[in-house]
Amino acid sequence: MRDVSIIGIGQIEVGEHWDVSLRDLGARALLAALADAGIDRPDALYVGNMLSGTLGSQEQLATLIADWSGLRGIEALKVEAACASGAAALRVGVMAVAGGTHDIVAVLGVEKMTDMDGEEATAALMTAADAEYEGIHGTSFISLNALLMRRYMEEMGVPQEAFAGFPINAHANAVNNPNAMFRQALSRDTYTRAPMIADPINLFDSAPICDGAAAVILCPADRAREFSSRPVRIAASAVATDSVALHDRRDPLFLSAVHASASKAYRQAGIGPEEIDLFELHDAFSIIAALSLEACGFAPRGQGTRLAADGEIGPRGRMPICTMGGLKARGHPVGATGIYQVVEATLQLRGLAGANQVPGARWAMTQNIGGVGGTAITHILEGQG
Amino acid sequence: MRDVSIIGIGQIEVGEHWDVSLRDLGARALLAALADAGIDRPDALYVGNMLSGTLGSQEQLATLIADWSGLRGIEALKVEAACASGAAALRVGVMAVAGGTHDIVAVLGVEKMTDMDGEEATAALMTAADAEYEGIHGTSFISLNALLMRRYMEEMGVPQEAFAGFPINAHANAVNNPNAMFRQALSRDTYTRAPMIADPINLFDSAPICDGAAAVILCPADRAREFSSRPVRIAASAVATDSVALHDRRDPLFLSAVHASASKAYRQAGIGPEEIDLFELHDAFSIIAALSLEACGFAPRGQGTRLAADGEIGPRGRMPICTMGGLKARGHPVGATGIYQVVEATLQLRGLAGANQVPGARWAMTQNIGGVGGTAITHILEGQG
Repeated sequence: MRDVSIIGIGQIEVGEHWDVSLRDLGARALLAALADAGIDRPDALYVGNMLSGTLGSQEQLATLIADWSGLRGIEALKVEAACASGAAALRVGVMAVAGGTHDIVAVLGVEKMTDMDGEEATAALMTAADAEYEGIHGTSFISLNALLMRRYMEEMGVPQEAFAGFPINAHANAVNNPNAMFRQALSRDTYTRAPMIADPINLFDSAPICDGAAAVILCPADRAREFSSRPVRIAASAVATDSVALHDRRDPLFLSAVHASASKAYRQAGIGPEEIDLFELHDAFSIIAALSLEACGFAPRGQGTRLAADGEIGPRGRMPICTMGGLKARGHPVGATGIYQVVEATLQLRGLAGANQVPGARWAMTQNIGGVGGTAITHILEGQG
Repeated sequence: MRDVSIIGIGQIEVGEHWDVSLRDLGARALLAALADAGIDRPDALYVGNMLSGTLGSQEQLATLIADWSGLRGIEALKVEAACASGAAALRVGVMAVAGGTHDIVAVLGVEKMTDMDGEEATAALMTAADAEYEGIHGTSFISLNALLMRRYMEEMGVPQEAFAGFPINAHANAVNNPNAMFRQALSRDTYTRAPMIADPINLFDSAPICDGAAAVILCPADRAREFSSRPVRIAASAVATDSVALHDRRDPLFLSAVHASASKAYRQAGIGPEEIDLFELHDAFSIIAALSLEACGFAPRGQGTRLAADGEIGPRGRMPICTMGGLKARGHPVGATGIYQVVEATLQLRGLAGANQVPGARWAMTQNIGGVGGTAITHILEGQG
């Protein structure tokens, strides 16, 4: 198989884009990425999206966006894995280039969630869980995560305030990201006084409902310098799964798909967690940030929040995470998130992350999670200098 | 790239499965295909499905079905291209095996459409069209096809009755298919007296709303005989797209994506339409059958219905199509259809199509279409004897 490189990136500001349609959001990010790579027409387009059918009455989305972007005719498919849809599309793109089916592939993540009221968006997000065994009991996606956080606090003896470090870091990093939704710092005091959304998840423990789109362009690594002076190699691409339903896991506090996906990725890249310079993890909820750090080998079990409390997760810390704001503060347009993570990691490896630059970053890991850990997709990226 | 073979097939009877859940439908077909290949655990599962989010409040479907089938942990992703979702998932599976990412891949198409009333299913099917430029005018998916058929009749000077040959052939073939939804022959007289659904599309010009699931197992061709005594090689896999909206095409009566996808497939397989022994085409509506035959080189423009009228499309005719009943009579559980087509073509190439066997069949073509020709995915299969 061929090594695959990222030769172009594009993103739009995450937010409430009431004046921009779903296809427009997608086309803007896609065309920006194509321009960055200096490419007019890729061989194929793979689109990560979760909710266009439910919230936009629109399927066949990849074909629609290909046409809207002036690419009528090309191969175009949509890939779905709930909130991991973005990374799922990247996974397909990597296989297409690595295996030799295509040379130039565009991968887009796009989601529009704010055209409906919050109740509809909340119902749509619940499609990430098990409809027949979880949804039927009236749970929402946030209440499932609240159950998980409550159990963690109980079993690990960790208070709710210990999670504050995650959103504080995310907001601090988003201040310097022009594409982030929340560019305001968050104080510990504000976190502590925040209203509960689904106890023990407070307003700042949960990522927002929003719109966004991000795209990357891939080609074989040995051709990357034709298109980019600072290409980034995809050193690993790995998918693993678990039960979708939370109650069906032997140990709900161990995200086995996250662990398996990261382990496969480390093997593919030939490195371990100690080599990773930054980790764009899936902080849809603070509890998932803690559990991801533990399942990926960055913290012992029950110690995930300790890293955040000790200030180790900032851009100049020992283990920088969510360096451009993460899902919490850059925003979490679900099907787009996995590509935002990769775009941001690419900025870091190109040395273009501005005030949030991780000094000397060479290896970046991105991890996109579907449901409460049902699907985990990990990519490891290496700067090619 | 490696050649890829089909080493196992599974399908369930198409129909109204009110007593079987979506995940059960999928697991039954998947486990049947794995048993056919003698495989316990594939490396990955790709699922084609269009409507689980809209009609079943369930996304992350591939992970859900992997777990329900006893395959917890494996790579699992859903692929969507409206009614071409089944073939879209196969496309991803073929890339994964051909490129060397995986050795054993399962591809499942599954759809459950009958748990909702017809109005909801009709609204959900409209997500295959352009929501903002077609749906907004109150069109349904069937009315868009009716516009196309009306224009064909007008421009080509073809009467409505000329389309009768397609459903008559489909029903005749379904009589011998135990997995078909409609196992009754259709007479010309019954066709002529049928009520209009969306003029000029009558009851028999349109495929039914139904449930179904079908699966195939893939491996590298040079290992195929470890698993199957009659493997089938995938000689071509090609995706092409057009505008989703019908009004945005220069010539609505020329399905350009169908043409481009078939042309790419012929090139990949190194054969032309004259070598194809049977063609499982996408007869969601009679008009699409006629236009597909024309766009793929089996009939001159405006002459698609002539083939059907002359009796050339039966299993022993010059150009057999829909040999096990097609979308019309086997049924069209949308995201599953593309895999049913491949399963049926595999039966033909294995010489196991019973009363409908195409004598000496070596090359089979399957074509799955998303929307009114927005996405076309063509596979060419060759029996390995």
